Order: sequence, then C-alpha cells, then structure tokens
Amino acid sequence: MMIIMKSNATPKQIDHVIERIKALGLNVHLSQGVEATIIGAIGETHNINIDQFEVLDGVDFVKRITQPFKLASRQFYPEDSKYALDGFTVGGKDLLIIAGPCSVESRSQIIETAIAVKKAGANALRGGVFKPRTSPYAFQGIGEEGMEYLAEAREITGLPVVAEIMSQIQIEEMVKFVDVLQVGARSMQNFNLLRALGEIKKPILLKRGLSATIEELLMSAEYILAGGNNQVILCERGIRTFETSTRNTTDINAIPVLKNLTHLPVILDPSHSTGYSEYVGPVARAAIAAGADGLMVEVHLHPESALSDGKQSLKPEKFSEIIQQVGQIAKIIGRQIPCVQ
Amino acid sequence: MMIIMKSNATPKQIDHVIERIKALGLNVHLSQGVEATIIGAIGETHNINIDQFEVLDGVDFVKRITQPFKLASRQFYPEDSKYALDGFTVGGKDLLIIAGPCSVESRSQIIETAIAVKKAGANALRGGVFKPRTSPYAFQGIGEEGMEYLAEAREITGLPVVAEIMSQIQIEEMVKFVDVLQVGARSMQNFNLLRALGEIKKPILLKRGLSATIEELLMSAEYILAGGNNQVILCERGIRTFETSTRNTTDINAIPVLKNLTHLPVILDPSHSTGYSEYVGPVARAAIAAGADGLMVEVHLHPESALSDGKQSLKPEKFSEIIQQVGQIAKIIGRQIPCVQ
Amino acid sequence: MMIIMKSNATPKQIDHVIERIKALGLNVHLSQGVEATIIGAIGETHNINIDQFEVLDGVDFVKRITQPFKLASRQFYPEDSKYALDGFTVGGKDLLIIAGPCSVESRSQIIETAIAVKKAGANALRGGVFKPRTSPYAFQGIGEEGMEYLAEAREITGLPVVAEIMSQIQIEEMVKFVDVLQVGARSMQNFNLLRALGEIKKPILLKRGLSATIEELLMSAEYILAGGNNQVILCERGIRTFETSTRNTTDINAIPVLKNLTHLPVILDPSHSTGYSEYVGPVARAAIAAGADGLMVEVHLHPESALSDGKQSLKPEKFSEIIQQVGQIAKIIGRQIPCVQ
Amino acid sequence: MMIIMKSNATPKQIDHVIERIKALGLNVHLSQGVEATIIGAIGETHNINIDQFEVLDGVDFVKRITQPFKLASRQFYPEDSKYALDGFTVGGKDLLIIAGPCSVESRSQIIETAIAVKKAGANALRGGVFKPRTSPYAFQGIGEEGMEYLAEAREITGLPVVAEIMSQIQIEEMVKFVDVLQVGARSMQNFNLLRALGEIKKPILLKRGLSATIEELLMSAEYILAGGNNQVILCERGIRTFETSTRNTTDINAIPVLKNLTHLPVILDPSHSTGYSEYVGPVARAAIAAGADGLMVEVHLHPESALSDGKQSLKPEKFSEIIQQVGQIAKIIGRQIPCVQ
Repeated sequence: MMIIMKSNATPKQIDHVIERIKALGLNVHLSQGVEATIIGAIGETHNINIDQFEVLDGVDFVKRITQPFKLASRQFYPEDSKYALDGFTVGGKDLLIIAGPCSVESRSQIIETAIAVKKAGANALRGGVFKPRTSPYAFQGIGEEGMEYLAEAREITGLPVVAEIMSQIQIEEMVKFVDVLQVGARSMQNFNLLRALGEIKKPILLKRGLSATIEELLMSAEYILAGGNNQVILCERGIRTFETSTRNTTDINAIPVLKNLTHLPVILDPSHSTGYSEYVGPVARAAIAAGADGLMVEVHLHPESALSDGKQSLKPEKFSEIIQQVGQIAKIIGRQIPCVQ
Repeated sequence: MMIIMKSNATPKQIDHVIERIKALGLNVHLSQGVEATIIGAIGETHNINIDQFEVLDGVDFVKRITQPFKLASRQFYPEDSKYALDGFTVGGKDLLIIAGPCSVESRSQIIETAIAVKKAGANALRGGVFKPRTSPYAFQGIGEEGMEYLAEAREITGLPVVAEIMSQIQIEEMVKFVDVLQVGARSMQNFNLLRALGEIKKPILLKRGLSATIEELLMSAEYILAGGNNQVILCERGIRTFETSTRNTTDINAIPVLKNLTHLPVILDPSHSTGYSEYVGPVARAAIAAGADGLMVEVHLHPESALSDGKQSLKPEKFSEIIQQVGQIAKIIGRQIPCVQ
Repeated sequence: MMIIMKSNATPKQIDHVIERIKALGLNVHLSQGVEATIIGAIGETHNINIDQFEVLDGVDFVKRITQPFKLASRQFYPEDSKYALDGFTVGGKDLLIIAGPCSVESRSQIIETAIAVKKAGANALRGGVFKPRTSPYAFQGIGEEGMEYLAEAREITGLPVVAEIMSQIQIEEMVKFVDVLQVGARSMQNFNLLRALGEIKKPILLKRGLSATIEELLMSAEYILAGGNNQVILCERGIRTFETSTRNTTDINAIPVLKNLTHLPVILDPSHSTGYSEYVGPVARAAIAAGADGLMVEVHLHPESALSDGKQSLKPEKFSEIIQQVGQIAKIIGRQIPCVQ
Repeated sequence: MMIIMKSNATPKQIDHVIERIKALGLNVHLSQGVEATIIGAIGETHNINIDQFEVLDGVDFVKRITQPFKLASRQFYPEDSKYALDGFTVGGKDLLIIAGPCSVESRSQIIETAIAVKKAGANALRGGVFKPRTSPYAFQGIGEEGMEYLAEAREITGLPVVAEIMSQIQIEEMVKFVDVLQVGARSMQNFNLLRALGEIKKPILLKRGLSATIEELLMSAEYILAGGNNQVILCERGIRTFETSTRNTTDINAIPVLKNLTHLPVILDPSHSTGYSEYVGPVARAAIAAGADGLMVEVHLHPESALSDGKQSLKPEKFSEIIQQVGQIAKIIGRQIPCVQ
C-alpha cells in the first residue's frame, strides 16, 4: 500500500501517517520526491481498510499494490481450483452444465425436466424453491415441498441439484436436500448469509450482483473462503446498464478478467443475462468461446406456462441443439462436454 | 392491463389469451384493430405477473395501466403519510434530520455526538452497530454493545435512534433498543427481511439499492406495507453510474418522482450519495430544495479517526452550519427545521 | 402507433388527438375500453415523432407498433445485406477481419503491418489518420500524409483500407484514398456527418456510441441509408458502465439482438471493447461464436511504442494465433475465414 | 506523474522507463521501495499521454499527480471566471437564466416567448435552429430563417441569444446572429468543432455528453480554451443511467464537483435532465441550492403543440413561478436573480 501525500503536506502530517501504519504492525518505507512524498506500508495489507488513511490530513490518495482479496486471488493460489461434485470435477476439463426450470413447480415437472436435460448433456439440475421476486404479489416458490422433489429427481437421474438460498435460516434444511447452494444476484452482498455459508461443506454458486463490480464479486467470494469453505463457483449473469433491448447486459469481458484474477471456476447464465430465449444460444456459445468453465441455463418443458421466467426459458430440444454446438466450440479451446462427440 | 397481440396472431392464440385472463378472475375487453388486436384485462391487476402473458404465442407485448404497487401508491392513498416518532411527526411540515456516526464506536463517542447533533438541529440519531462491509477483513461494527450505547444516548438526548438491520434474526433484539430500523442499500431486495419487517410496529427506513430503479424501491416498500407495517420512510442514497469523481451519483430527480408516485416520506442521504464531506452541504441543500422530507447525514467528532466512512463524515460544527442554510431553504418551500429561525 | 388515453380523458381531448392523427395523413381506429380509450394511428408511422402526441392533454402514453427505423429493419428487408468490397463480400459466409494499428505512424509501419495482418488472415487494413482524442494535448494523428501511406499499403497487399472520418469536411479527400469510412463512437450522433455520408458510394463502418442504445445505433444507420447509401456495417465496440476493470463493457448481447433487428452486417471490435490486449482473444472468439460477421482488431508491430492504444494492441504473431482459433469456431456455426483451414 | 513498477521489474526495464521520461523533457525522481520501485516524472505533465508509459514492460500502473487539464483548472486559475455578455456578467453574483423554446418555430413564436421569459426573469433567450434528432425523419429545425427571428427577438427584448451549433461549417453564419454558441451533449466530443470554436470570440455553452465523465467535460472545455477562447460555460444536462422514470438522471453532484475543479461558470438544464415539465421546478431549485451559476430552461407558449420537447417545456406562467422561488433560494447562498425581490 502506498500513501501519496499532498505536495504541501507538513512534516507533522507525514509523521502522523507513519505512526498509524506502524500501529497496524506494518513496516514503513518513506520516499521524499520533489512533487510528492510517498509512504509505503509493507506487510499483510489485504485486510487493511484504505479509507482510514485517505481521511488523514495531508494525504492525497492511497493506492493498493496488492489486491484487497487474498484467498480468492490467483496471486495467492495460482492453479485452477478443482473439486468433486458427485463424481464430476468442477473446474476441470469438462464443462459444468447446469440446467432446469426457474422454479420447481411440481413433482412430475422437475423429474421430467431432469431426465430431459440429462439426456441433452447437462451434468447438474437447477430448480428454485424459494424465489426472490420484485413484487410481494408474485409467485414466491413452492418451498420445502420443492426440495423433496429435487431430491427425488436427483435419485432418478444421478444429477446433483442446485437451488437458491435466500437466508441463513434456510441452511439447515437445504443442506439435507441440495448439493450446491446458489446465492442469487440480489443476495451477493448479504454478508450474514455469506459468512454462514463459509461454515458449511457444500459448493456455493455465487452470482454477481446487478451492479456489482468484478472486485466486489471476488470480495463476496472471499467472505465464504475466509470462513473455511473453499468450494465457490462464480457466475456472471448480466449487469444492469442503460440498454433496454435485453433484460441485462452480459458482461462477457468478466469471463477472461475473472479467469485472470482468480483460481475459482467461472460460469455464465445466458438466460438471465439476456432475458430472451432466442438469445440464449448465441450467448451460451460466446461464454464457452471466451473461456467460461460452464453454463447455467433455464429449461422448461412448456415455457409458455412457466410460473416464472418463461420468456427466457428454452424447451429441452432447443437446449439440446445449443449444447451440441457449445460442445464443439469447447473442443477448440481444449475443453469438452462429455456427451458431445 | 393491455395485451397487444402481434398483427399475425391467430384467432386460436387470441382465444387462449382470453381464457388465461378469465382464469385469473379478470374481465376481458377485446378490441380488434387493423394493425393489432388489443385485449384489455380489467380488475385487480396490480398483483398479476405480466410475464405469464408475454410468453404466450401471438402476444407482442403487455402494458400495465395501473402501477405494480398499490399500498405504496399515491393513486391508492393520495394524502401524504404521516406518523409519530417520539413526538415528532414524520412526513409533516417539520423536516426529519437524522445525524450521527457511520458506526457506533464507543459509549462516549455516541453520547457526545448525540448531544452535538441535537444542538445543531437534528431530531434523530443514527449509528451503525452491524456494518455491511465489502471486505470480510474490514471493521464489522461493535454489535449488541453498540445498541446499549445508542439507547443510553437516546435516554440522555431524547433523540430517537436509527440503526441498520442486516438479517431477520436481529429483529427481536434490535426492536428493544432501536426506534427506526434501517434497511441498507445492499439489503433493499432481501425479501425475507422485508417480509419480517412487515410484521413489526416500528418505522422502517428503506434505502434505495445501488442499481435499483425507483419502481423497484417502491416494490420493496410494498413488501413491508403488505405485511401490515405502514411506517416506511424511503431514502435516496445515490446510485451507481459510470461517474467516478464521486462515490455514487445522487439521483436528485428521484425526490420529485417519488413524491409524485407515493405518499410515503422521502429523505436523502448526501453523505453516501456523494462520498466526500465537502459535497455534503451543497447536496443537502439541493435535496430540501427539491422537496425531500428530510436528510440523513454522517457526523463524526473526529472524521480522520473514524472506523468507517470518515471521508464523507462532517464535523459537528460544519453540520450545524449546513443545517442553518437548509432550514432557510426549507421555509421558502413551506417546510421548516424547528431549531432554525 | 397506439395512443392510450388516460381513464379520465374527455371526449374533447379524444377528438383533438384524432384530428392530429388525421392531419398527418394517417387513418384512425378507435377503441373505447372500460379502463382506457385507445386510439390507433394506421399508415406510415415510422417517421412520426411520438412526442407530439405524448404532450397532448388526456394522453397517458404512446406506443409504436412498428419500429422507428425502416430501411435498416429486417422487417422491411428480411435478407442479410451483402455487398462487394474489393472482391470480398461483406455480410456473406466469409468473415470480415479488419486489422491494423490504431494510428498510422509512418510509411514503413503501416506497410509492414499490412503485410503481417494479411498473412495472419485479415482481409482489410485499418489505420487512423485523424484521431479523436479526449485531450487536446494528445497525439491527433498524422493526417493526409497517413492516407497516402494507407493507399500505398493497399497497393502492395491488395487489402482495402478503413480509416476514421471526423467531419464532413474531410469526405472529399478521404474518398480518394480510403475504401471504408469509419464513423467513430464519439461521432455516432454527428448527424451532419451521417447525412453527408448518405450521399457517397463507399461502405460506412458505423461504431456504436459509448452510451448509445441499440435502437439509437440503428437510427444513426437509418440517416445514412435514408441518404441513399446502403453500404453500412455496424460495429459493437463496448459500452460505458460502472465496471472499471476493463476499458468498456463488451455488450455481447448486441450481436444476436442486432442480427435479429437488422439485415446490416455486424462486427465487433474487441480491442476497444476490452482495452487490454490479453482479453482481445477471448472476446474475439466470443463475438464470432455469438454470430458476428467479423472483427476489427488493433495490431501493432511494437505495442510498447505505439503512439496510441498500445495497451490494447496485439503483436502480429498473437493476432495470427487468435485468428486461427476464431476461424475454427466460425466453421461450427457455418462461417469461415478463408485463410484458416 | 508517478510510474509504479511491478515488484519483479528488472533494472533494464526501469532504465527504459527513465529514458522515455527524459526524452519528453521531464525530470526523473527514483524511489526504490521494498514492494515497488516508483519513478516520478517532474515538469509539465498535463499534456503527457500516460498510456505510453502503461504499455512499457515492467510497469504496473501510472498515476497523475496533476490533472490532465490545465487552462480549465482551478489549480491553474483559482478565481471564478467572469465575463460580460451584453452587459450581464456571467459567473458573477447574478444567476444566468437562459430560457426559451427547444426550437424556433416561427417569428411570432420566438418574439412572444422572448418577451414572456424576459418578464419572468430570464436574462438570455434560447432557441434551436439546427436540431440534432435521433431520427432522420424528425423535425430538424428551421435553419437560417430561425436565426433571423432570434436576432429580431434580441433586438426587441435586449436579451442575448443562445443557439446550438452542430458543425464547424455553421460558425461563420451563426456568429453573425447569435451571442452564445451552444455545443450539445451529442457534440461534446466533436473535437473538430471544439477546436474551431477555440478560435472565435463568443461565449461557448458546452453541455455534458450523455455518458461523459466530469473529467471528459473539462477536457472538452480545454480544447476550446487551448484555442484561445476563454469564454466557456459548462452545463450539466443529465446523464444516462439505468433509471427509466425520467429522461436522464440529473447528476446534481456535478455542480459542487465542477465548482471545486474549475473556475468556469456551471449551469444546469433541468428540462433535459428530467424530461418532464412537472419535475423542472424542483430540480431547478436544487441546482441553485447546490451552487450552480444559472439555469437553462425550455419554455414554450403552447407545449402541447411544440415541434420538439413539448413534454419537458414549461408555460411562461409556470416558469415565472419557478424563477421566483429560485431567486429566493439564491439569496440564501449569496446569489441573486435581479428581477426577484
């Protein structure tokens, strides 16, 4: 960390900054230039809040040299993270393809969908049981009942299941039924939830918030990692911009940027990032071409009667076609979807 | 709600839409034009999810006539909401001036600050005890201990106290000590928390999310109102844009827009919406000039040693000066701060 | 166009709207519902400014049924536009690969680069001679001299050349030397320039503005098309958002959205849309996977001594590698780069 | 300017950076710390393009100490800029109130409006004659004829007139008729136009681009100042964000930020920054409360039949009311509108 003093900073102000650095157990390196005095703080600085230096008298600005996250950082852990999920290796050569309906609506719906997406090439099943909805009057998910159906679909197909958690109160029950706990975009900075998820032993699928920077996404991952759970999967799902022709703007840049900054696996959700089923295929192909470790796709047997997100859901046949193309693109960059020859 | 069919929609598709509307207990008004057929759905439509119509075959788009929120709407409740807060009337002629430190740091700090801000014209005290921080390594608040100090500061000054709640688990304890529960920007769409706050009897200060639209803010208020708690105060605190010279962008338009759409009181937090103490004064004046019902301002005895947000905190003397000017502006538009002559 | 009247609109207000529609030579279709009266305006409405109806008393809102652009629309012209560019067919099966330096710096630089990018698979050469720069003190391009070098590079390699035009004053001279005139992001709404370019007979490469919506991009294309020049190539080059880890945010959604809305060819510029050479490859692959008709890539022999945009420029060898991968992805979706086997 | 080298930078890389700095005529100050080597470049650095250092091998990042603009900077010129405009002093104690229609539509319209706005307190008249319109089919202004009407309105009322210029080709004619040349938001980075305006002797009203940062606005002002014309007025007119309930988002923070960074006068256009006439009053009051040096407001005798921007135009009576309130607020912060007692 470097603290750049204003050109008119007084010796007393400089001394005060130095004291503060030392009080944090850091070493000081002082450099007095013509235009500015620069004070370097050396040691473990990723957990220092730079604000506390920015407010000191005489300080112009403060610049980190090291990143504010550590456990999530590729500087700290250069190899790609890999871990087993029901026999499948997340973060390895095989792409993680999570598919299923926005919401679990009934027993037969989720079981039939699970069979269909597995056949099409998915290696995990998604299905929401607690739904975060903008309106209090909208369908809020079928709750616990849905978890039992998910567990049954898993029994039948062998697919691990992914479902969204909205509150730490739900952890105890959800871990009984669900293989991967998803933290939705609106919960990315629910820090109490993140801390609680740091203490469990299941993979966490962490979605980027609607207006979260890439650094903030990594800081939220750091909350989980710092708690001792190192099984975090990051998910780009579109950000909010001025453009209104799609539901969100897919930040495709985030894929190579994240792969550069972190060792954690990174997937993309083209259903939410576009909002329209006709754009899911092109953006799914783009994600894999850009280096993503997988996809999360909404698939519904009858999108026109879905209780939520029908507009962005694919029918199983269309999903199957897309996975075939995605699998071929994967091979060009050294990845694969096992079912695609 | 109007459903506009594509120009080539078939009679069968039109009939299907009509059936769906009737199934929701709504009446249908059909209008067959040359360019398009329009199907009106008449009745209680604010709680209808329009997505379920947008995915039907033959539908071009769906347009609400009435707003998606009801209890928060001025259409539904035309008069300004007013309610008592420790003798003070929120939403009335007097402006609500909430001031205090970002975080409660010690007993003496919060008591001294409470005395200082009261003297300067504040009629409520803020102080965070649970702090939502981007980094797991940053200061996270002093927790329950802080609530006792807040309660003591209240005892001494008579100021009602405002503190942020981060999880529904904290409700039981916080309601014992705190007068107004604040929902922070990052929790604006923590729907489990909102639902739980709908069941208590204390005012809720609901801050706008970093990338939340005005409509979404009102939908989150609707969650609380729908639960039976009608004491909601809305707070503009800056939105996230491309501009980097300030911490956030104050959406001053939100003040008149919200006053137009809702009967709920609307205040502005110029500390977070600018991020720099030198800009707090001008933006505080602007907020009141634009018609806000109050302000929430960070004040710290020693900003340079604050444990959080020092850069945007005012010293009490500066706060006092600003309140004097704000009070004079208030009078021009028919409002007042009692202490300002 | 549909004009939805407020529920309390008076018969006189309705009549006034009807008169206005008729005055524009349009037909009227009136539908009086229970919640709202809707007035349809039928005929050639793409050139009607809907604002003039929105301000009339009693009007709630106005909704277009047809798009505000016509000549650019796939509704109007369903087939993909194709046209010859020096033997190459833009918009056909072959991808358009434009490469070269940000700025023409010297005769030898542009000739050597042209030879290198051609060898690597490019089929057009880019090179700026007039440079739009944020700072008046930055390098502004070498001007006319550069055009002569571009022409010479073209002579030697056979590659058509692309250069940016900043003012209609430059047209007369530039058309002598340059094959494709590029309108930069900052000029996308320089309507005088667009109109002037509608009158020439050369292809126009129209880049999306930093905060332009997809619809606005198409409206700017419409200016050129309406003038009689139907050779327009659209270029996504990243939009401005809150994310700061890249120079811009690549809106990959724009590729399938544009291919859906318009018959015009659509390419992507991953150099500007990311701002860092290490991210150009992944995003170039993503663009083609998403269905783009080509790429525009900055290539410099010595990025570290480039007079502009060095940070986002590729060396020729790296560019060559990327084009190989891009060519393989192209084949999977039925496209090709001729040089890539 | 400071160049921070990567921790593993080699002596050769450091030497190369030093050479480059010296080649620009700057002095070097070298500081070798434990974590990083920092190279200071001392001298006239505002006109140095920092990119050229960022691409050098071994460089981590480059940080300016001084701002990239100089003539526009308050560091360079601490006093508020003031200059005469037809007897009125722009930038002084009196607020600049520019009012008039979006477009000049007829002789009688502009003359009547001029008389009305003068009576209400305006001290300058606006009226567009060349209109930048998103659609090629929309009304594009009445051109030269309009300038004659503006001149006549000026003759009658004594109000100086402001009109938008879209191309340097129009300068010669416009300077004959118009007192202040306005550069619209879409032209803020039309650098050829800015350079040409640097050579004339009339005030330039420079509006902020839809997605321009405050720094970019100042850099565009720098183009004009660097050409020798120091009569620049800056205008905040709303930026583009995700919020759709208003036409743009008024960045009220920009007022104190600009007043801090530059000596140039800063005004606000609440008509464009909100897009709705009912929000113009509150935001106009906010602008002056925040410290703006004036306003630019659209006023139309009959907004419902305006050829452009009717929705955001005020009737003269409403404008008059607003100016009364604005004038009272002005007094509280030491400013005034001469006609308001």
